[in-house]
Amino acid sequence: MSQRFAVGVDLGGTNLRIGMVSDDGTLIRLIRAPSPTDRTPAEGLDVIRDLVQALVDSTGVIPEAAGVGIPGPAVDTEGTIDMLPNLPGWRGVPLAAELRRRLSWPIVVENDANLAALGESRWGAECRGLDLIMITLGTGVGGGVILGGRIWHGALGYAGELGHMTISLDGPVCGCGNQGCLEAFAGKAAIVRRGCRLRERWGGTVSDGCGAEDGELTPAAIAEAAQRGEEWAKETLDQTGRYLGVGIANLICVLNVGTVCVSGGIAGAGELILAAARKEVLRRAFATPARATRIVVGRLPEPGVLGAAGLALTRVS
Amino acid sequence: MSQRFAVGVDLGGTNLRIGMVSDDGTLIRLIRAPSPTDRTPAEGLDVIRDLVQALVDSTGVIPEAAGVGIPGPAVDTEGTIDMLPNLPGWRGVPLAAELRRRLSWPIVVENDANLAALGESRWGAECRGLDLIMITLGTGVGGGVILGGRIWHGALGYAGELGHMTISLDGPVCGCGNQGCLEAFAGKAAIVRRGCRLRERWGGTVSDGCGAEDGELTPAAIAEAAQRGEEWAKETLDQTGRYLGVGIANLICVLNVGTVCVSGGIAGAGELILAAARKEVLRRAFATPARATRIVVGRLPEPGVLGAAGLALTRVS
Repeated sequence: MSQRFAVGVDLGGTNLRIGMVSDDGTLIRLIRAPSPTDRTPAEGLDVIRDLVQALVDSTGVIPEAAGVGIPGPAVDTEGTIDMLPNLPGWRGVPLAAELRRRLSWPIVVENDANLAALGESRWGAECRGLDLIMITLGTGVGGGVILGGRIWHGALGYAGELGHMTISLDGPVCGCGNQGCLEAFAGKAAIVRRGCRLRERWGGTVSDGCGAEDGELTPAAIAEAAQRGEEWAKETLDQTGRYLGVGIANLICVLNVGTVCVSGGIAGAGELILAAARKEVLRRAFATPARATRIVVGRLPEPGVLGAAGLALTRVS
Repeated sequence: MSQRFAVGVDLGGTNLRIGMVSDDGTLIRLIRAPSPTDRTPAEGLDVIRDLVQALVDSTGVIPEAAGVGIPGPAVDTEGTIDMLPNLPGWRGVPLAAELRRRLSWPIVVENDANLAALGESRWGAECRGLDLIMITLGTGVGGGVILGGRIWHGALGYAGELGHMTISLDGPVCGCGNQGCLEAFAGKAAIVRRGCRLRERWGGTVSDGCGAEDGELTPAAIAEAAQRGEEWAKETLDQTGRYLGVGIANLICVLNVGTVCVSGGIAGAGELILAAARKEVLRRAFATPARATRIVVGRLPEPGVLGAAGLALTRVS
């Protein structure tokens, strides 16, 4: 059987990534560009088409289809973009139909977190598995649910909003308006605030109020400090990992999936955060499934681009 | 196409129910007996065989298969019973194999909550649907997850332990050892304790300490008092419904299923408890999926028996 190829596009609010991917999950070439979100959608779509064409020319392979990841749910089979905070001017654009017109291949549009989960599920090193939940620790806490090797969308495409599970009835207010969401404990703002306070308590830099945007502190900087062995940073990751573990324990209770894959900036700290998460899972979920669940870091480069191409290949085969 | 039949068995810790069911979900006849859990497994299996045989004789129809629900996970395809609190002497019994030997039909063994969910999913009035989560409010809070018309087991059969989601990090200790589980807020003991305290506060019966086993107060009695309009009871259901709503909101975030079906003793209070749950769901989950999720009472008679027969028919077809 000859090899097949698809293009994977990750259309983020800031960055655009386009990759040529083979059906064994090899990322043959990747193009990065600023996301054309400051253009009109028509111009932006032309930019994407030109970049894809350049990718085809430079690799010399003919893709069968393309998949596009967007930072929100795709509302219909035309890939129409709903109101997305990161793509405000693109509301109502039938993305799949418009790109199909420009590229003349089948195009699928899907939520980017779902595609990243699909990419890890198919081709990840430690995360690979037919039943997988991916939790992404970024500015927000997102995720994707893969059941039987397929993306689980739910009735309206809103499945996988893992950061908005309530883990503390009367907990801190979340950006979504709810109280005590996982994201309010393990999202970027919460991590930075926790790190800032713990750094003060351990006698380090004193900041004014420890707001979410305080100084230069970022989750990545906290992860680096922890890897250097700084206690305040290790404690920040430990506490964050425990909250993450509460969320993972809940997912085990509901779905008992075999693998939970954690990715995103702070997940780079790896064992420092996952060891605490695993401990909390053992404390909270039933022993048998808790012990059997693999809780691992997703390390696939460009899982969203790979997942987009993988989904496109599945749809046309 | 001629009609097909199967036997559904619900082997509970206290009661045994055996029904003859047709493939359109009609419960043709039901036999009730005490659960033979005080016998040796061999004797108990003979009792079940004799009752099934009596059911076949009295209905005059020939079933193709039988399904058996047990109060815990079935650990393998032989339907081997693990250590179950309600069937302590039956540990290690290969239930499917033993019944197959006695009845010479195909036998499937499955968790009873999963079967009740399957029954409602196929033949329920309001609950019917391919994607459904059932929450059972009984002594504990259990449930079943039906995705694409099939029971979702997860890796080891532990999916659907909905009562053990943490909804309050530092909440009351649950029977499972964890803190702040949904069951610790919406299980029988919690409901009775809440009802007892609220009855006191509203100037009713004063109890000594309001323990979980206090006096004659039961969830059903609270539901009846609420239906008579007694304020303490209405408030008990309202508060319970709000906790239930937190759990349902979490399920919507993770799976965005179309239908959440609530059953069990106190669910008989219907709107009094579900109205509060729906309000809490709207407060906590994203607006679009929250509004679209049907949160309804499961009213199918004998959903576990029907689900057991339904699963058996699916397996042999």
